[in-house]
Order: sequence, then C-alpha cells, then structure tokens
Amino acid sequence: MPNVRTDMTISLEGYICGLAAQQPPYLDEGFFRITEWAVAHEAWRERAGFDGGAQGTDDALLKEMFARAGAYVMGRRMFDSGEEPWGESPPFRAPVFVLTHRQREPLIRKGGTTFHFVTQGLAAAIERAKAACGDRDVQISGGARIVQQAITEGLLNEMHVHIAPVLLGQGTRLFDQLPDSVIELDRYQVVDSPAVTHLGFRFPAAA
Amino acid sequence: MPNVRTDMTISLEGYICGLAAQQPPYLDEGFFRITEWAVAHEAWRERAGFDGGAQGTDDALLKEMFARAGAYVMGRRMFDSGEEPWGESPPFRAPVFVLTHRQREPLIRKGGTTFHFVTQGLAAAIERAKAACGDRDVQISGGARIVQQAITEGLLNEMHVHIAPVLLGQGTRLFDQLPDSVIELDRYQVVDSPAVTHLGFRFPAAA
Repeated sequence: MPNVRTDMTISLEGYICGLAAQQPPYLDEGFFRITEWAVAHEAWRERAGFDGGAQGTDDALLKEMFARAGAYVMGRRMFDSGEEPWGESPPFRAPVFVLTHRQREPLIRKGGTTFHFVTQGLAAAIERAKAACGDRDVQISGGARIVQQAITEGLLNEMHVHIAPVLLGQGTRLFDQLPDSVIELDRYQVVDSPAVTHLGFRFPAAA
Repeated sequence: MPNVRTDMTISLEGYICGLAAQQPPYLDEGFFRITEWAVAHEAWRERAGFDGGAQGTDDALLKEMFARAGAYVMGRRMFDSGEEPWGESPPFRAPVFVLTHRQREPLIRKGGTTFHFVTQGLAAAIERAKAACGDRDVQISGGARIVQQAITEGLLNEMHVHIAPVLLGQGTRLFDQLPDSVIELDRYQVVDSPAVTHLGFRFPAAA
C-alpha cells in the first residue's frame, strides 16, 4: 500500500500561517517567516525554477520529500492561492488531486504536473492519488483543514512536522477541530538544524 | 539577573491537558498521558516521596530542572488543584509564589516549601521570586494562562517544551491568547528520547 504522508511547517504554537494569510491578498509575514527555511535551499529553488540555494541537512530532507512524492492531494483554497504563482511549470512534477465542490477538466502543466479536480471527497482523492503514485508516497500538501480531516478519518500514515523557532502570536492552527480522542504516535525521527526542528511521526496502522 | 524559565509538557498539538482537566474533579486522561514521562523517573519520584524510578536522558533533564529552580511562580488554579495531592511535603522545596486575588498568610510546608500569596500581579510575583531564588532560576510552573502572560509581558528568558508524541484531540492550549506579533526564539537545545522530545528556547533579551 502506498504511504500517505504530510509535511507541514509550523511555528512553535502550531500555526501554519498568520492571520493575513486568511484573506486576499494572502501576503502573510508569518507564512513567509516559517517557510523561509525551505525557500532558502537548493531543493526548493530547483523546483521553483531558480539556481543556487543552500545545501545541508534541511536540503537533504527536502530532496527526499520531493523524491518520494509520487502524487499530491490539496484543498481548493491552496490550489486557488497557488495556481498563479506556480505558473506554467509548477513544482510538483506529478499528478495533483485538488479537492473541490466544482467539477472541472484536468489542467495539464509543463514538467509532469497535472491538476485533477476531485468532487467525491478526501478519501476518494487519496485513493486516486494512490493509484497514480506508483511506488512512491502520496503527499498531502494541505491546507490545515485537509490534514485535520485526514487525521480524523485515519487516512494518514506519516506526518512530518517542521517546527520553526518563532511565535507568530495569531494564525491558522495545523491541529484544530480534531475529535476528542487520544491518538498515540510513533515519533521515529528527530532531525535538528539551526533553522528548524524536524519531527517525523508514524500513525498507528489502520484497523 | 536570575533566569526566568518555564518547563511545559505538551501534546503535539500544544495541549497541556485535555478537556476533563478544565473542571472538577480534574482527573484528565490527557494530562496523565502527556506527563507520564516525568512521573516514571527517579527525579520526579524522589520529589514526590517515592522510591525507584527510571534513570537516563529524561531523568537527567528533570534533575537539572529541579536543581536549578530556586523559586517557583504559579497560578491560583494550579495551586488549588495541587494543594491537597502535594500534601505536607510538596515537591518544590523552595519558595512558591502563588498569583491570586485573595490575600492570605504564607503557608509553610515541610522540606523547604513555603507558599506565598501575591495579589499585585505576575510581574510582582516574579520579582519576589527573583529576590528569593538566590543564584538559581525562577521556574514558572503554570498554568497556561500564566505562561501566556509571561510571554506577552516579556518576562520569560527561557522556555523548555517537552513534546509527547500524542494527539489529545481537544484540550487547553499552552500557546493561546498571545498578541499578534512575531517573537523570534533561539532554539538552543534539542534532546531526544523515545518518550518525549525536549526543545529548549531562549527569548530575545528584554529591551
């Protein structure tokens, strides 16, 4: 069975972004701050079409994440806010399944990225991604609500939390609206770097 | 200047306890779950009057924390819920300054613990703890609201977050009700153990 994984960068409070990211024009200092560790590195820059960038521990993790992702699942708001900046050659280079309420033809981009629009819900989107990812991972890109739903429905196998050493004060929580029940995780990986602390967790095997 | 520090154990979501801890009888599965790493160890057991307990990485951190604490500051709800279980020989063995709205004579217990009741606010309680802690730390014991207030008022120098690998689903957040402003932290310590991940942060020097 393909591995269903998410990688989310958060502030120490668990925010994936600050308040400004919640409405147009979505330009949020907090989001830029917590994701700067990724943007600075060669792996991310290569995917975004830029030369250069730092190497090292963080870069190696990013490269592994990209290499392992055979298909992506994301929410409609993430797609809407990314469609324009990602441009003609989006960084995914793999099928992307966008959860939406509105049917739409697949959007084929350069470099291997095709956006498929799925109206049957998250579980269905993940099933389609599993069928498309080959022997690689399904990567749940976000946003927070999609990750929460994947946790609630027991659809995630692996979660990587990248903790930036900053308090944003206010923002959108990664972990919210979860059911009132305890989920034990296997914290199988800790990778430290000056810019960010990477914690890798596995979820208990689905029943 | 004495160091003002807090050590808080949280779930991966940043909860210090689950929902049941918010009302009598305060018996909360989530709180017991996330603090079990401490309770299992020699350092904690010795303070609580029990023999035995595990040693190792987590125990060494606990011992250092106890050894460095020259005075404590806590909220009234934490005192109220702890007064009875702590008994005649509370684990602090140092002055404890309890923030309250109601004046009360100091409560002298065995083993070096005296509870002082402070009605002039958090900054005043911390000042009194600084005057009493000698060359050791002031430890902010909690609850969450006191830690939030200390962050907001720039009263904390050092924060240790002990992350238990568990999702509680619902609970009381450690990081909440903070002002909408970015605070950069120096994440100077990462200590990993199977039971919990310890992250040590320093706050920027007060202006």
